[in-house]
Amino acid sequence: MNGLPLPDYEAAPVNPAVRLAALASTDMAGVEALIADRASSATAVIPAIAHHLLDAGGKRIRPLITVATARMLGYDGRGHLPLAAAVEFIHSATLLHDDVVDDSELRRGKQPANKVWGNPQSVLVGDFLFARAFMLMVDAGSMEALHVLSRAAAVIAEGEVRQLAAARKVATTRAEYMDIIAAKTAALFAASAQVSPILAGAPAEVEAAMEVYGRELGLAFQLVDDALDYGGIAVELGKNTGDDFREGKITLPVALALEAGGADERAFWVRTMADGRQSPDDFDRAVDILKSHGALDATLEAARGHAARAVDALDAAPDNVWSQSLAALAEFVVERAY
Amino acid sequence: MNGLPLPDYEAAPVNPAVRLAALASTDMAGVEALIADRASSATAVIPAIAHHLLDAGGKRIRPLITVATARMLGYDGRGHLPLAAAVEFIHSATLLHDDVVDDSELRRGKQPANKVWGNPQSVLVGDFLFARAFMLMVDAGSMEALHVLSRAAAVIAEGEVRQLAAARKVATTRAEYMDIIAAKTAALFAASAQVSPILAGAPAEVEAAMEVYGRELGLAFQLVDDALDYGGIAVELGKNTGDDFREGKITLPVALALEAGGADERAFWVRTMADGRQSPDDFDRAVDILKSHGALDATLEAARGHAARAVDALDAAPDNVWSQSLAALAEFVVERAY
Repeated sequence: MNGLPLPDYEAAPVNPAVRLAALASTDMAGVEALIADRASSATAVIPAIAHHLLDAGGKRIRPLITVATARMLGYDGRGHLPLAAAVEFIHSATLLHDDVVDDSELRRGKQPANKVWGNPQSVLVGDFLFARAFMLMVDAGSMEALHVLSRAAAVIAEGEVRQLAAARKVATTRAEYMDIIAAKTAALFAASAQVSPILAGAPAEVEAAMEVYGRELGLAFQLVDDALDYGGIAVELGKNTGDDFREGKITLPVALALEAGGADERAFWVRTMADGRQSPDDFDRAVDILKSHGALDATLEAARGHAARAVDALDAAPDNVWSQSLAALAEFVVERAY
Repeated sequence: MNGLPLPDYEAAPVNPAVRLAALASTDMAGVEALIADRASSATAVIPAIAHHLLDAGGKRIRPLITVATARMLGYDGRGHLPLAAAVEFIHSATLLHDDVVDDSELRRGKQPANKVWGNPQSVLVGDFLFARAFMLMVDAGSMEALHVLSRAAAVIAEGEVRQLAAARKVATTRAEYMDIIAAKTAALFAASAQVSPILAGAPAEVEAAMEVYGRELGLAFQLVDDALDYGGIAVELGKNTGDDFREGKITLPVALALEAGGADERAFWVRTMADGRQSPDDFDRAVDILKSHGALDATLEAARGHAARAVDALDAAPDNVWSQSLAALAEFVVERAY
């Protein structure tokens, strides 16, 4: 008893991500220790930038999936910890490079690392974290898991390049957009869920089902993010909204509104997103247009479908507290938008 | 007989890099095929940028080392080919990111990829090549080789960050500079030479000696590059000179001249390199100052020392046409500056 009060999990309903994190707390402490250890470097700016990201209060949802799928399958080794840390490093490296690519002044109301330290530093520290991710994978000792994660990293980069090509293009279709997020977001979620079955020596159909769980969860996650960037259903606009609009990113809500709207609205989207000429009221008007077409509802409806497919995929896995938590997590990913 | 004339290697003395490439031509054709195959992507800008670099007439010196060390040790498998291609991909990814970091209009008289396609594209295609490098390593099937190359990739990024911190700092010492190039250049040469002994199951002392061969060759290579950037001994100034001066990179020749020079010269270096205020005559004056202190000679003398240590390291390896070619390569790396 060191005097620290334990969190009172009974006192109030907690969200499934928090509940899963509590369930996995011993493993996640190991993951955090690995993250801290492997982000270290005698070159001071490296840990400074790495911790700017790693300590930014991220939910660690990807490593949590790796840890939970391992435990769900009865894996009792230690290899899932470096794989989980590797997944978070790949995610962090991608974020560092995204900030350079997007050249945003603000990201969710905070200054991105490249605006504090500079683009060159963000590029190089991203490379460092990426390399360290592969060293962590080597520690896990599974060549097959390494293959899955390195392929995911290549697919992510391809998705980012395609997103860049689609930026400010109002002709981006729903199908094109779904292809992009399958690559840039869902591929890493899929890999996060697939590596533990490999490590645990689970049957091929379980591995395939977990890949589906991760991929569908990733699609749901991204679509909810897209809706939340316009305030979601509650339409709470604030510092966490408007990034995509400002950067001219045609996400699903906008693609749907473009399909449904007339020439006037099209001209609005062309001016604000394709040409990037925005006045202070434009974001509110964008939200109004999206709502008039039910585009946020439709986006969240699509997210709900993907989350349901993620839950269904868990049928191939043992029914235990871990798989139940993973199912609850998939449902929560969508609920947070309401 | 397909009618193509064979190169007449007897007609004229060829440089050892060319001779080694001819000796390794079957393997190198395999490496080139892998490079072309793995740089492909349905996202058109990716192969476009990748080939801008990969087809730029590079000497493929790093993959050549991987192939030659494998053959020298009697390795008769195929794993050295993907490792050699992986090494070239890591090198290419680093170059793409370097161009973004340095923000140079010209690199050796040519437009770098980021000036043709943009910084975001160069960052992302670098990430793609980096990820594909790891997929190639997985193909080779050696976890130990993967460890060596992923560690090298992390060390390279650290070295680049340190170089960035040292840029425009006239206080950079010779020791600091040697530390930087050991990381940013020599680490990949060392890994290129170390992975084949691992694959071939060579004794630990042979693996260690090849690591030394690669590292020392890499240091010699970088120092010669540094001297050539100021025209080398022949002082042929042209489109391939002046990059470091323009970018304010304090390399060994400048560090040595700063140690030896007086206050006037120091003020010159501070203005041109630290402050970046350069007039058209300044590069010629820089070369004059370097020559007045024998700084280019001293840099090449240091390079010669490292090349000699690379040759000595080959004593641990079998004496055959491959080790003889690797020794000749080390000597040639220095000779090209004269």
